[in-house]
Amino acid sequence: MRIAELSQKTGVPVPTIKYYLREGLLPSGELTSPNQARYDDRHVQRLRLVRVLLDIGRLPIATIRELLTALDQPDPDVHSVLGSALPTTVTTRDAVDPASVVAAKVRVDGLVARRGWLVRSGAPARQATAEVLAAFEQVGADVADLLEQYADVAEQIAVHDLHFVGRASDAEGKLHAAVVGSILGDSLLAALRRLAQEHESAKMFGIRRDDC
Amino acid sequence: MRIAELSQKTGVPVPTIKYYLREGLLPSGELTSPNQARYDDRHVQRLRLVRVLLDIGRLPIATIRELLTALDQPDPDVHSVLGSALPTTVTTRDAVDPASVVAAKVRVDGLVARRGWLVRSGAPARQATAEVLAAFEQVGADVADLLEQYADVAEQIAVHDLHFVGRASDAEGKLHAAVVGSILGDSLLAALRRLAQEHESAKMFGIRRDDC
Repeated sequence: MRIAELSQKTGVPVPTIKYYLREGLLPSGELTSPNQARYDDRHVQRLRLVRVLLDIGRLPIATIRELLTALDQPDPDVHSVLGSALPTTVTTRDAVDPASVVAAKVRVDGLVARRGWLVRSGAPARQATAEVLAAFEQVGADVADLLEQYADVAEQIAVHDLHFVGRASDAEGKLHAAVVGSILGDSLLAALRRLAQEHESAKMFGIRRDDC
Repeated sequence: MRIAELSQKTGVPVPTIKYYLREGLLPSGELTSPNQARYDDRHVQRLRLVRVLLDIGRLPIATIRELLTALDQPDPDVHSVLGSALPTTVTTRDAVDPASVVAAKVRVDGLVARRGWLVRSGAPARQATAEVLAAFEQVGADVADLLEQYADVAEQIAVHDLHFVGRASDAEGKLHAAVVGSILGDSLLAALRRLAQEHESAKMFGIRRDDC
């Protein structure tokens, strides 16, 4: 198909597709003349993946390029992507005081060690967790209990996630599932959590079904 | 304290503080002369909360203003904030096809009904969940199992969250906990999930402790 049809199939405007091509997020089409290229279903799939990582995962372009490069390896290393290439969707920017993050990092390292989690000492998620803990403290919230409860829940989720990854038959499929599941999974969990919160809150504050 | 000291205490630049004042995210200080105002610890607290909602929750200014207005009510209605004012941190922008979202919404409504969740029919989280489901489908992932597993987990998390809210002694404290816990909780969960994923992945792919 030509670029106009690729645009129509995916709903992505032509100039945006050209931008992704320039940024290396989408492989070039097959040249049929000096200024015309042909695209196929793999481009459609890749374009949809890029939109998801960009618009829902809100990942930086450079990070997406790295993930896609990993996906395109002939024998992708699923664990190293799950363990290191996959970013958290957490960014605290400059909302937290660096000194509190350093203190919180010690707590996170303690949690990981106590639970026997096999996580590299330099894993970016350690830092991300520390930043969120520091943010909680900064607004005066004591999250000691919540941290342990959430860690219990995170263990269950990770088992489901790895099962989701393991269902794919080949390494490329596993890696695709890892990337999609990790990034979209954060959003799915956040949305379901909000639904379940409304339900628990309705129970706590005595809201009846008729009032819903 | 004067605005310079408020800036120093919170690490927020003076022009940014002035911007928050203009946007109504921060109450005015007490005027001590026509162009000088005095701020107190409540401004410090509020400023920290604004940064967290803005930089970590990535909420739009208008949404933050609504939440802060609710917080400042003399007798805040915690359930209505938990149920309706609190946004999900999920945004899919234009990454998903509207027709698939409509189809996914039917599945979400089915899930809520089957589980007997007390959630208003117009709750924004229903739409947010549908958007994420549609995004999963768009990249070719079958999440039927994952959806139920995540819903189970979301129920547990919501119980912890409401316990966190219920610990506060007065309505204002409860509301503060609801806002902070909901927004920061998404990030805490996402970060811990990534740690637990690395651990599960290490187990699945046979990584030993020495290799971490």
